[in-house]
Amino acid sequence: MNKEDYFIKHISNSKYIGDDGAFIDGFVYSMDSFFENVHFKKEWIDKGFISLKQIAYKSMIVNISDAIAMNARPKYALISIAIPNSFNENDLKELANGFKKAAKDFNIEIIGGDTIENSKLDISITIISKTNNPIYRRGVQLGDYIFYTGKLGNSKKDLESLLSGKKIKKNSKFIKPILRSDFFYEASKYINASMDISDGLFLDLEKFSIASNVGFEIFKKIKEEVGTSGEEYEILFCVSQKNLKKIEDIAKKHKTKINIFARAIKGSYRSSFSNHHFKE
Amino acid sequence: MNKEDYFIKHISNSKYIGDDGAFIDGFVYSMDSFFENVHFKKEWIDKGFISLKQIAYKSMIVNISDAIAMNARPKYALISIAIPNSFNENDLKELANGFKKAAKDFNIEIIGGDTIENSKLDISITIISKTNNPIYRRGVQLGDYIFYTGKLGNSKKDLESLLSGKKIKKNSKFIKPILRSDFFYEASKYINASMDISDGLFLDLEKFSIASNVGFEIFKKIKEEVGTSGEEYEILFCVSQKNLKKIEDIAKKHKTKINIFARAIKGSYRSSFSNHHFKE
Repeated sequence: MNKEDYFIKHISNSKYIGDDGAFIDGFVYSMDSFFENVHFKKEWIDKGFISLKQIAYKSMIVNISDAIAMNARPKYALISIAIPNSFNENDLKELANGFKKAAKDFNIEIIGGDTIENSKLDISITIISKTNNPIYRRGVQLGDYIFYTGKLGNSKKDLESLLSGKKIKKNSKFIKPILRSDFFYEASKYINASMDISDGLFLDLEKFSIASNVGFEIFKKIKEEVGTSGEEYEILFCVSQKNLKKIEDIAKKHKTKINIFARAIKGSYRSSFSNHHFKE
Repeated sequence: MNKEDYFIKHISNSKYIGDDGAFIDGFVYSMDSFFENVHFKKEWIDKGFISLKQIAYKSMIVNISDAIAMNARPKYALISIAIPNSFNENDLKELANGFKKAAKDFNIEIIGGDTIENSKLDISITIISKTNNPIYRRGVQLGDYIFYTGKLGNSKKDLESLLSGKKIKKNSKFIKPILRSDFFYEASKYINASMDISDGLFLDLEKFSIASNVGFEIFKKIKEEVGTSGEEYEILFCVSQKNLKKIEDIAKKHKTKINIFARAIKGSYRSSFSNHHFKE
């Protein structure tokens, strides 16, 4: 039993569920958790592999990523944070600085939330964003070309390094994901469907397939370590043939690497891989 | 150091912070956590003192309480839930039923959230509500009379029973808080300031005092076990002398018990008690 799918199916049949966020009357609402032992480990902090400021920053970025992938501009954030009793004033300051930096980088106002004491560091964030032109997962048209931004694979590699007790590079995307907002906002008018790559390309492609009721002809070989790398926060998107040139020009303008690798066909696409979040 | 105060102060200086929710352009946004070992204990579930359905229901109610206390009608909910690996399908169904019941009772649509696997059951909820006439904590005027709804004290008593391993009544407000929405929405036009009683009357009165820059003359003795009982989710509110009769009539109409106990005066009010959430 996949708990996530089961739970979502049983809790609500809202038409707003099924995308990176819920679009209602010009706003996008999205919420994601970032929990110790699920998304990061305390020993990585203790060993200096990642700082509390970076943890807080990443917890914001993975949420902002959802807004961008729906072509929405983040405006407000609510942050609920559960903090270990052992944290001192400096720890709290580091966390606060990470949240504040992300808020500043993306022009977001932190408008509330909740702070409690807990056995471990657990963060949940809600982002309220605005758009006049939301992009959904369900918009893939037959014949569309499928792209992803950036380079995939290093998040998985870096996670494995961390899990085996090894330090990773300071500029690792696993520590600091790179969001493609400038490229994506400009390209948005030519994009039929999109989502961010959080569970890995193969699994996210499956979600695309289910939402749009299409299959995919993958014409560029995707290695397993590339297609199963989660927490990449690159964007998966699709474009009609007639707009390919426009997308390429906008990508060039923003120096954003984009990779064309598949085409939407009749049928369905299913991944045989499950997501990489480590279990306790 | 009070971690909550410290953190809020350092993370944002938004003018929207400081009430039960943030009011922006007709919407109120509020977010609260409901965590195992902070708000409830696993052994209460194991012993049958409280069901998973009741836990889920209460986690929604304490969030809806914030919306009502600002005179807002809840519309949408985002739910992030961290579920122990040991939970079976029936456990998940019970949780889902609790969320769905609260959503139905208050006409809320669940529009998204996040589900992860975790070492314990931790819930965070964001409620999006609507109002044309938000009521803040900062509205207390000198001379205003201060009220609370219902009866205070039993939540603390029931929590103490649970903590000492004793069963409590099925209709305990600690398990199922009673929200005063019908009374409060109708009375709202005569109310100058309000908030829900979550930390205990004395502590919440202190927040009123800080927000409105007033003191309080307490003319009805409040026993310690009444004034320090948290998680009551009754409403603390204040009314000008000229509207006392109207408020009393509306309370009578809705069969809502209201208690007048203090008056706003120059000065400041500080509680000497801290909040009752148990620490691990």
